[in-house]
Amino acid sequence: MKNILVIGAGLSASSLIRYLLENSEEQNWKVNIGDISEELAKAKVGNHPNAYAFMFDVNNEEQRTEWIKKSDIVVSMLPASMHFEVAKTCVEYGINMVTASYVSKEILTLNDEAEKKDILLLNEIGVDPGIDHMSAMQVIDRLKEEGSKLKQFESNTGGLVAPKYDNNPWNYKFTWNPRNVVLAGQGSASQFLHNGRYKYIPYHKLFERTERIKILDLGEFEVYPNRDSLKYMKIYNLENIETMFRGTIRRVGYSRAWNAFVQLGLTDDTYVYKESMNHTYHQFINSFTKYETTKPVEEKVAEYLKIDPESHVMYLLRWTGIFDDKVIGLESATPAQILQHLLEQKWTMEDDDKDMIVMQHQFVYEKEGKMKKLTSSMVVYGEDQTHTAMSITVGTPVAIAVKMILNGNIKSKGVKIPIDKDIYTPILTELENYNVQFIENEVDYEAPKEFI
Amino acid sequence: MKNILVIGAGLSASSLIRYLLENSEEQNWKVNIGDISEELAKAKVGNHPNAYAFMFDVNNEEQRTEWIKKSDIVVSMLPASMHFEVAKTCVEYGINMVTASYVSKEILTLNDEAEKKDILLLNEIGVDPGIDHMSAMQVIDRLKEEGSKLKQFESNTGGLVAPKYDNNPWNYKFTWNPRNVVLAGQGSASQFLHNGRYKYIPYHKLFERTERIKILDLGEFEVYPNRDSLKYMKIYNLENIETMFRGTIRRVGYSRAWNAFVQLGLTDDTYVYKESMNHTYHQFINSFTKYETTKPVEEKVAEYLKIDPESHVMYLLRWTGIFDDKVIGLESATPAQILQHLLEQKWTMEDDDKDMIVMQHQFVYEKEGKMKKLTSSMVVYGEDQTHTAMSITVGTPVAIAVKMILNGNIKSKGVKIPIDKDIYTPILTELENYNVQFIENEVDYEAPKEFI
Repeated sequence: MKNILVIGAGLSASSLIRYLLENSEEQNWKVNIGDISEELAKAKVGNHPNAYAFMFDVNNEEQRTEWIKKSDIVVSMLPASMHFEVAKTCVEYGINMVTASYVSKEILTLNDEAEKKDILLLNEIGVDPGIDHMSAMQVIDRLKEEGSKLKQFESNTGGLVAPKYDNNPWNYKFTWNPRNVVLAGQGSASQFLHNGRYKYIPYHKLFERTERIKILDLGEFEVYPNRDSLKYMKIYNLENIETMFRGTIRRVGYSRAWNAFVQLGLTDDTYVYKESMNHTYHQFINSFTKYETTKPVEEKVAEYLKIDPESHVMYLLRWTGIFDDKVIGLESATPAQILQHLLEQKWTMEDDDKDMIVMQHQFVYEKEGKMKKLTSSMVVYGEDQTHTAMSITVGTPVAIAVKMILNGNIKSKGVKIPIDKDIYTPILTELENYNVQFIENEVDYEAPKEFI
Repeated sequence: MKNILVIGAGLSASSLIRYLLENSEEQNWKVNIGDISEELAKAKVGNHPNAYAFMFDVNNEEQRTEWIKKSDIVVSMLPASMHFEVAKTCVEYGINMVTASYVSKEILTLNDEAEKKDILLLNEIGVDPGIDHMSAMQVIDRLKEEGSKLKQFESNTGGLVAPKYDNNPWNYKFTWNPRNVVLAGQGSASQFLHNGRYKYIPYHKLFERTERIKILDLGEFEVYPNRDSLKYMKIYNLENIETMFRGTIRRVGYSRAWNAFVQLGLTDDTYVYKESMNHTYHQFINSFTKYETTKPVEEKVAEYLKIDPESHVMYLLRWTGIFDDKVIGLESATPAQILQHLLEQKWTMEDDDKDMIVMQHQFVYEKEGKMKKLTSSMVVYGEDQTHTAMSITVGTPVAIAVKMILNGNIKSKGVKIPIDKDIYTPILTELENYNVQFIENEVDYEAPKEFI
């Protein structure tokens, strides 16, 4: 019997745990689920005979070492910053490890030692990062094999509410960590490559630089650029490509309205807003406008943003309640925390709501002397609020990877991400059983018209 | 004979050293000037009999300890981040210390120990911070004594080229550290208090939120807000004031044009621009605009900024050479470093140019039942490019403080800034001999008209 240790039983672990338990009989697995909340861990396993749920504190070195030592593989579903402690212990005792998070610089330092110990630390095997890597590399490798020459690559992903439940004017609800949504894009400028030219966009212009895409029969979406698209040129071995772009998908109109919050400074998380307990949202937004007593705040905001007071953006702002005389009531909160608190009251999924993950790659390439464009699109719907599309697409590839590693089907060692064929092919194939599949469409490529 | 140790012989130390040497005979001082460049230190003292210039490395603990131990007072004119090592040694051996820099959190931790050792660590005794504190507190204390009630306080300072030498369309030249000018305002939002309301301005809006002031016979200037005006409410003991604002002075038009660089993202210092060696400035600025081959970059920039391509802002941008086909030629430079490099070729003081420091406080208060407004203005011109206005106004108050401490005329101990009467009165009085003086103008106050 093989021992699997899953650390962290939060939302993203639900579908992972379901897969592991459903396969535990056939595979002869014991699935141990540790979480800082024993109750949460127990809720996720029910009374499945092959499961054991318990209180696990990753910072307790004795407990961590004891559990990792006796496991055949460790899955860390903790927040990314906590993986390193787990990884160090895994390397020390020669235990394989899987995470759905980006490879950190710290984790990368463990590569040589992991190779020496003949173990695999597999990361970025969730949805984004994860399914994006695998599905992109599958096409990239195929194009290479058939002798096509890839010129442009664009890859976009978004977590949204499913169309049937999409009933607010922002066409957005929080289906994942709200804090990440509020802070999205902050930091250094976004960087990508467009027809051979590097492009840089500072945070305060990011949500004005959207482009439109269409996904299958779901209609139009908009995309804003992710922070660093360029690093994937190296990772995907596309160093001579002309366009390299990764973005985040929203429904059309979201970004222009979100930009209003950015322009005002409401997404700032670096200082405390002095009256976050007693002020109203009305006073809050007013603090970011000029002192001027003869104009209503809404008018000052429209002027500040240089937009029509009756525009759609102003309608979306009003809809959030940001102009209301309602007390904030948060102690020592940053502007970003106040904004998040407001939006959590408006963008919450209702009990019966379901989420959706959309992903689309666009490849432009030369094939037998002709330019072609291939669009590869994925749409995954959530089953309910436990097995959300996010949980399914993050947890299922992690679980499949666990199975493959335990069965000796992945030969790679060291710190890896799933860009090699021996990893992505079986995982993508099995994911189709879980309605995670890509629909491809190839057309002749015409460069965008120039309007002179 | 008293031993003075001056650490750092850079531009800001010139007038300090001159004062110390001029007074060394009468005061019976030995003035020791240490700098990492022995040549620079020697150049600053000539062959004055009471001076000794030598190579000093602040990171050499042995040298540092040896020199500090045998001094009666230490003046650190090093960059602010280097003061702490000096201050620790001063406290250890019970030696007084003076700097023109902001009190850091680290320095503040030395307060109790300094009090115990009966020594003074006097900071913020340059121009800004320094003369601003002293001149403001002199009026604030006087208003209190005469029973007036201060309602509004605003204080603005700027380092500019003197009007006679002001011959470029930005009306600006680098008279001080160019890097600080390029990075000005970055970080958390600017915060101030306006008629009882806290106001917050994010960096990307800072240069759009200027106000106008007039200074004596020099005409109109504009002011953009400093990062944190609020902390001075506590420091100046003005906790019930209604308006508290500190700002930076520029000539009218500067901020709107600078804002263009901010909007484009050219002031970003957090990442390396990939082609800083080979690209031209033209390509550089183009990297921050949309990919669009049918429009000249200038047109794209005007569109991006939503301004008239023939506007004054565009004229100022063109004047810098930012659209020119000239190669940048910098290795691994950030956008901010590239912009600085460009501007250093355009905003440089010519050999005969002189600088100027302007400072203005505005006080609005209730005096015997009537509202009054007092404007207190200072203009100091540089003598040449050694004794610049910046050097005079930074170095002279430091030097006077050194004299006062050595003569036992300052009783305070611990970590202090010059906000107490026993410090500021004699210093401001003596500064008048150096043409550093404030001209006051009191008028009846009328609140700004509301245009309805």
